[in-house]
Amino acid sequence: MHTGRNDSAKRTLTRKVISRTTDSSDRSAGFHIEDNFEGFSQVDDVFCRSQYDSSVKSLETQRFFEMYRRPLSGWRGSEGYGQHDYALRNATWHVADIFAEMHEPSDRRDGFLDPLSMLRDGANEEIPFASPVEASRVIKQAGQAVGADLIGITEYDNRWTYTERFSISTLSGKANPLPEKIKRVIVIGQAMDTELLDTAPSALSGAATGMGYSQDALVLLTISQFIRNLGYEAIPSMNDTALAIPYAVKAGLGEYGKHGLVITPEFGSSVRFGKIFTNLPLDIDLPIKFGVEEMCGICNACSNACPSRAIPDAEPSLTTFNVSNVSGVKKWTIDGERCFAYWAKINTDCAVCIRVCPFTRDYTKLHNRLWLRLADSTFRKFALYLDRKQQRGKRIASKKWWYFNET
Amino acid sequence: MHTGRNDSAKRTLTRKVISRTTDSSDRSAGFHIEDNFEGFSQVDDVFCRSQYDSSVKSLETQRFFEMYRRPLSGWRGSEGYGQHDYALRNATWHVADIFAEMHEPSDRRDGFLDPLSMLRDGANEEIPFASPVEASRVIKQAGQAVGADLIGITEYDNRWTYTERFSISTLSGKANPLPEKIKRVIVIGQAMDTELLDTAPSALSGAATGMGYSQDALVLLTISQFIRNLGYEAIPSMNDTALAIPYAVKAGLGEYGKHGLVITPEFGSSVRFGKIFTNLPLDIDLPIKFGVEEMCGICNACSNACPSRAIPDAEPSLTTFNVSNVSGVKKWTIDGERCFAYWAKINTDCAVCIRVCPFTRDYTKLHNRLWLRLADSTFRKFALYLDRKQQRGKRIASKKWWYFNET
Repeated sequence: MHTGRNDSAKRTLTRKVISRTTDSSDRSAGFHIEDNFEGFSQVDDVFCRSQYDSSVKSLETQRFFEMYRRPLSGWRGSEGYGQHDYALRNATWHVADIFAEMHEPSDRRDGFLDPLSMLRDGANEEIPFASPVEASRVIKQAGQAVGADLIGITEYDNRWTYTERFSISTLSGKANPLPEKIKRVIVIGQAMDTELLDTAPSALSGAATGMGYSQDALVLLTISQFIRNLGYEAIPSMNDTALAIPYAVKAGLGEYGKHGLVITPEFGSSVRFGKIFTNLPLDIDLPIKFGVEEMCGICNACSNACPSRAIPDAEPSLTTFNVSNVSGVKKWTIDGERCFAYWAKINTDCAVCIRVCPFTRDYTKLHNRLWLRLADSTFRKFALYLDRKQQRGKRIASKKWWYFNET
Repeated sequence: MHTGRNDSAKRTLTRKVISRTTDSSDRSAGFHIEDNFEGFSQVDDVFCRSQYDSSVKSLETQRFFEMYRRPLSGWRGSEGYGQHDYALRNATWHVADIFAEMHEPSDRRDGFLDPLSMLRDGANEEIPFASPVEASRVIKQAGQAVGADLIGITEYDNRWTYTERFSISTLSGKANPLPEKIKRVIVIGQAMDTELLDTAPSALSGAATGMGYSQDALVLLTISQFIRNLGYEAIPSMNDTALAIPYAVKAGLGEYGKHGLVITPEFGSSVRFGKIFTNLPLDIDLPIKFGVEEMCGICNACSNACPSRAIPDAEPSLTTFNVSNVSGVKKWTIDGERCFAYWAKINTDCAVCIRVCPFTRDYTKLHNRLWLRLADSTFRKFALYLDRKQQRGKRIASKKWWYFNET
């Protein structure tokens, strides 16, 4: 929870060194979309496929999902995978799980397969705003006060909406309706705890993911209820309903990276995105450029470190590895099957690519803000050299995390 | 959400200037409890009384509660009480309300009249700890990572448990069972947003309260689920089950102030407390002294500023104003009936005493940490003079808050 604007004031410092593009076109956002692009069905998502597709589903993937929910036993017991590590990881997922499981009898998994739906009715009348600029300012001011670490606004784009949702009861597609009147998407970024992530891969590092989801649910529900209380429609969405990454890029929260994640100037790769679909007329933000594309072009940290070799050292292309990749987009693409197979093997989510990404830094520190400036200059090779020299992103033992206050 | 330890590292700086007492006795905590002390029934709580006691209940108190829940209309419309102010206030309460309303059919209001109950079963076996000191360290490390701003641990004390809970369906007392095996109480402090509080009294300032409750629910559920996953019992509690203030003082989170609230060295009066009852053998913290008792003795800011004149300018005594006061304790006591009548009148909670308290400061700033040191010295009158000179705690217009980023 924000207890003042010190943090965000420091964070905005990193925004000073970046440039906005001039429009919200695909080109400005760095998107290369082919004419044959057809949209993505959530049925093809690798997590969904692990429920029904024998090329993904295994005893390991089943155990993977069960371990998040059942009373703990049978943990691996090795460093980073002890009972206390799993105990914390599962606890951090708990509040997100409450919302996900609340409507299972109605074939809904709120926040994962269906939008968050625990909202009250709002006001009957729409509060008037002087302008979309004014409305955007109010939403950002409120969002920041209720704990959103980043907020950007962009146009609703039907291309990123899942062609179908996944039904957990029929193990197949179902309709993915969104009201016609939705014109804007508010994209929320929640920073993940980098000290937990420094222990990746480990069950402990999964606590950063779980807390990201639980905090995201809190913030998305709160901002959406605020918009409803102003008399407008607001549909809060986590992994459900639409792709998050193109929205985060379009809304100016960051640039797309080689590991298939969005890299932000405030938290590097260490951030989760949520989104709110709304009919509130809002001014939009524009995509940003701060050297990520160029840095990813010469850096190979994520690809080299990926335990499952799921991140190719390759140029952006139309290559897809399997149906879990979006097709018809020229971009860096990772192999989600390999990635998730490794998660199942280690029995928790992996975040090694986030940990090793040179942009994952604490930008409240001046020297890291200077590094960011260097990374977006002709001296970016030197920035990369410094990053390696510093041994930033080195794995920390889970045990060391637990004993932090002692040292 | 904590994204690193920068904040808490800075916060611990304020702890360096305070001293722990030598034991956990009533005397160390500054408690003066008479032999005839009999415990407090939640039925006598002023909020509960407003449901059934005609000396508290009125059309205004009914409207007060309704305004939090019903679709917004009929707001006052004056500065600080507009639709956007109420819209944000109600939105911040939303997640806490979800838990409160979830079990209403079973005559429960989780977090307000009954403990939070949305927890999974934990592990079947208790994880062993080398010592209570070790166990406390693990709980504090985990608690901090999941967003607890302050954590202290103390002994379970039956005196602070409500003699009865309040039943909303019968409007009378009901049993308040706690398992025999509970031996420790973990007290969690959540900082409230001081920039929102600076607008008190206003509907907008109530957003700090709402967000405090919603964030508290998230953090208490997460830490409690963690303890259950370690194989122990954990019962998360907000306003329900027991008095929070004596526990917060005993757990060393702060000192009791003239306004009837606990003042902490990290956030002054701007903090909410939650608690977790557990059988996990934990090392306890000791009460702290950092000049609050002495400062409250000479400062009268809260008493002078209180719009309802509910805070007497008086020495600690056995005085009680009505049944909503705990009796048999020699202490500063406020008139809860007057306080709540004012809330009902302005149609939102008031936090003027928190805003004007000289200890409510941003202690990540060096000059405020120096002030804290001065306040706990023979120069405390000078500290008070400086506080008045600075005009810290002056009311900020709601409009100014909404336009913050513009100025």
